[in-house]
Amino acid sequence: MSLIVQKFGGSSVANTERIFNVASIITDTFKAGNDVVVVLSAQGDTTDEMIEKAAEINPNPSKREMDMLLANGEQMSIALMAMAIEKLGYPVISLCGWQVGMHTDSNYGNAKIEKITPTRVETELARKKIVLVAGFQGINKYDDVTTLGRGGSDTTAVALAVALKADLCQIYTDVDGVYTADPRFVKDARKLEEITYDEMLELASLGANVLHNRSVEMAKRYNVDLEVISSFTKQPGTKIKEAPNMEKMNVSGVAKDKNIARISLVNLADVPGIAFKIFSVLAAKKINVDIILQSIGRAGTKDISFTVSADNVQATLDILNDNKDKIGFENILVNEKVCKVSIVGAGMVNNPGVAATMFEALADANINIQMISTSELKVSVLIDEEDADKALSAIHEKFFN
Amino acid sequence: MSLIVQKFGGSSVANTERIFNVASIITDTFKAGNDVVVVLSAQGDTTDEMIEKAAEINPNPSKREMDMLLANGEQMSIALMAMAIEKLGYPVISLCGWQVGMHTDSNYGNAKIEKITPTRVETELARKKIVLVAGFQGINKYDDVTTLGRGGSDTTAVALAVALKADLCQIYTDVDGVYTADPRFVKDARKLEEITYDEMLELASLGANVLHNRSVEMAKRYNVDLEVISSFTKQPGTKIKEAPNMEKMNVSGVAKDKNIARISLVNLADVPGIAFKIFSVLAAKKINVDIILQSIGRAGTKDISFTVSADNVQATLDILNDNKDKIGFENILVNEKVCKVSIVGAGMVNNPGVAATMFEALADANINIQMISTSELKVSVLIDEEDADKALSAIHEKFFN
Repeated sequence: MSLIVQKFGGSSVANTERIFNVASIITDTFKAGNDVVVVLSAQGDTTDEMIEKAAEINPNPSKREMDMLLANGEQMSIALMAMAIEKLGYPVISLCGWQVGMHTDSNYGNAKIEKITPTRVETELARKKIVLVAGFQGINKYDDVTTLGRGGSDTTAVALAVALKADLCQIYTDVDGVYTADPRFVKDARKLEEITYDEMLELASLGANVLHNRSVEMAKRYNVDLEVISSFTKQPGTKIKEAPNMEKMNVSGVAKDKNIARISLVNLADVPGIAFKIFSVLAAKKINVDIILQSIGRAGTKDISFTVSADNVQATLDILNDNKDKIGFENILVNEKVCKVSIVGAGMVNNPGVAATMFEALADANINIQMISTSELKVSVLIDEEDADKALSAIHEKFFN
Repeated sequence: MSLIVQKFGGSSVANTERIFNVASIITDTFKAGNDVVVVLSAQGDTTDEMIEKAAEINPNPSKREMDMLLANGEQMSIALMAMAIEKLGYPVISLCGWQVGMHTDSNYGNAKIEKITPTRVETELARKKIVLVAGFQGINKYDDVTTLGRGGSDTTAVALAVALKADLCQIYTDVDGVYTADPRFVKDARKLEEITYDEMLELASLGANVLHNRSVEMAKRYNVDLEVISSFTKQPGTKIKEAPNMEKMNVSGVAKDKNIARISLVNLADVPGIAFKIFSVLAAKKINVDIILQSIGRAGTKDISFTVSADNVQATLDILNDNKDKIGFENILVNEKVCKVSIVGAGMVNNPGVAATMFEALADANINIQMISTSELKVSVLIDEEDADKALSAIHEKFFN
């Protein structure tokens, strides 16, 4: 008998039919003799509807009250799922964040889990109940409701798996695993049976929206076996664990990220410390910078270009302009019509040929590369947004066919 | 400076406009220098929508999970109201049942409050915050969410007023006070400035749906000053307190209750113990019986008639038929087309002329009386449902014009 934590996202529980579909997955796991803990997100568009309702009342509410509002989405999900499981005739109980001892810091809207004291969950498991837990939510030291921000329910699931020493944490979603590329754009994309935490982290950060990085990082830190699996197909998904297969191919996937913009500071003084000034003022305001490129400008000057996520463009421009004198640039250029395409794979650093193969694929497809960035696990290029799908297919074909 | 507990029902917070209307009432009270604790119900039809959603999944869910679901309605209300009050620029915090120490028994769906430990409320009041509390909900000894059943939010408000030793508990509603008769049916109905707890209890139990009996009973027991007041007119409402005015008129109101049925058992043996048998089997199944009438039937037999609320008719018939041999009746007659009309007033028992005046009004209006019941505080008659409004007007005119 194993202890399995399962997580189902909002689209998997969006209506009565889907709720019963999920209920059957849960009860099948339970019937097979496992202890089952299930983390659920809010149904379908519930969270968006609540955000809209709030915006009508106050476009700028306190995050504390926003969390108090949003936590209801998950609480309704678990109660409705409990009713479905009761209908199927299995013992079940639903529990909120405060009932499962999901203690977080007080960073409302984006709280970090500090400690889980899952006594209640253990008690209910010992009573042979299926335990449903509201994802995305916790409580802070004041006994206030907090929410975990983006990817919150995935994080709830992994954190519970850690706290309960679960044998497996299954993340059910609307895709049936992790692919070598986004199957919506690359028709030959192949599902991976296994992938390492680090590869998954790179893929997630590159825009393959299967699992949130936070949950993968936690799984890696505590060595939790993860599985990404479809709630619709009942096929085996992709297992994420430590170095599953040392002999596997270097490149495990190709991903693109359009939610990105290139910012260039033109005609900076060619003196030491400029880059430090730029990236320290941005870091102070928590703006994450990705690829950085420095090039020679006109006589005695240089240009620095870097990428930020699209929603940080305005904030970045404001910060840079506020510090214009301190940094000393002539003007700023912004290009939001760009896309980052990356290949990911363990051991890539030891195979310089991999990057070359990627560049060859792009050259053959007549795609211009604006910026390049490499790490131990990936090679990323910045290209024109309109070339994105062509690039993805070209690279994928090169590596996987 | 006073501590005032205010309660607003679902229709008072049904949309953004109404939420801001209520927010202005709350902040006006706060601006006047009072400590303010506010209890809110779920918005408009939220609760009904959740019940519907649950029914689609499981027509017979556990009450524990139903409470887990329904509690979200009030939690969403308080969060949205907090955002509205923040928008108006006042300090505010919203708190759920478990956060205000609203401890109940474990009778899910109809829990009774056992104890309130409102430390958190007191802390927030000391910080000069307006405190919003989710009505209708509590937690039991297992730390499970419970709901208080019908009239739950009124009860939450009165219970908090008791626990916090509030100076006043205002129940805001869509009527502007307690009337001598339902103003929708009797055009000359007058608003009462004051009424005693006992009179209010009789009026409530007679179908004047202003305040739930449970909350009035609790207010009476702990001597909490109540006020029923409109959230729309900003006029003074009706104060409910102990014997406000010893010299006032005997009759304080006229009420009707159509949600009632008359059940008659025909040709019972005319021997002792029959009534005991009938009403003990009904009491064992928690069927409340109101007016009882016993009459002589054919030779050596008698008939017993009584009224029950309309939703208990089927259960009553089932119980009686199950016990047909034990009780020994020939058949059962049911009349659901009846209405109970009552006059209520302190000291009525000392004024036998009051009942006579009521009967005179009905005779003048040519209305036949089927059954009569009197108590210290009221005189009730059972009449044909179709005569109800005519009877109400005739009696009201006799006493109040």
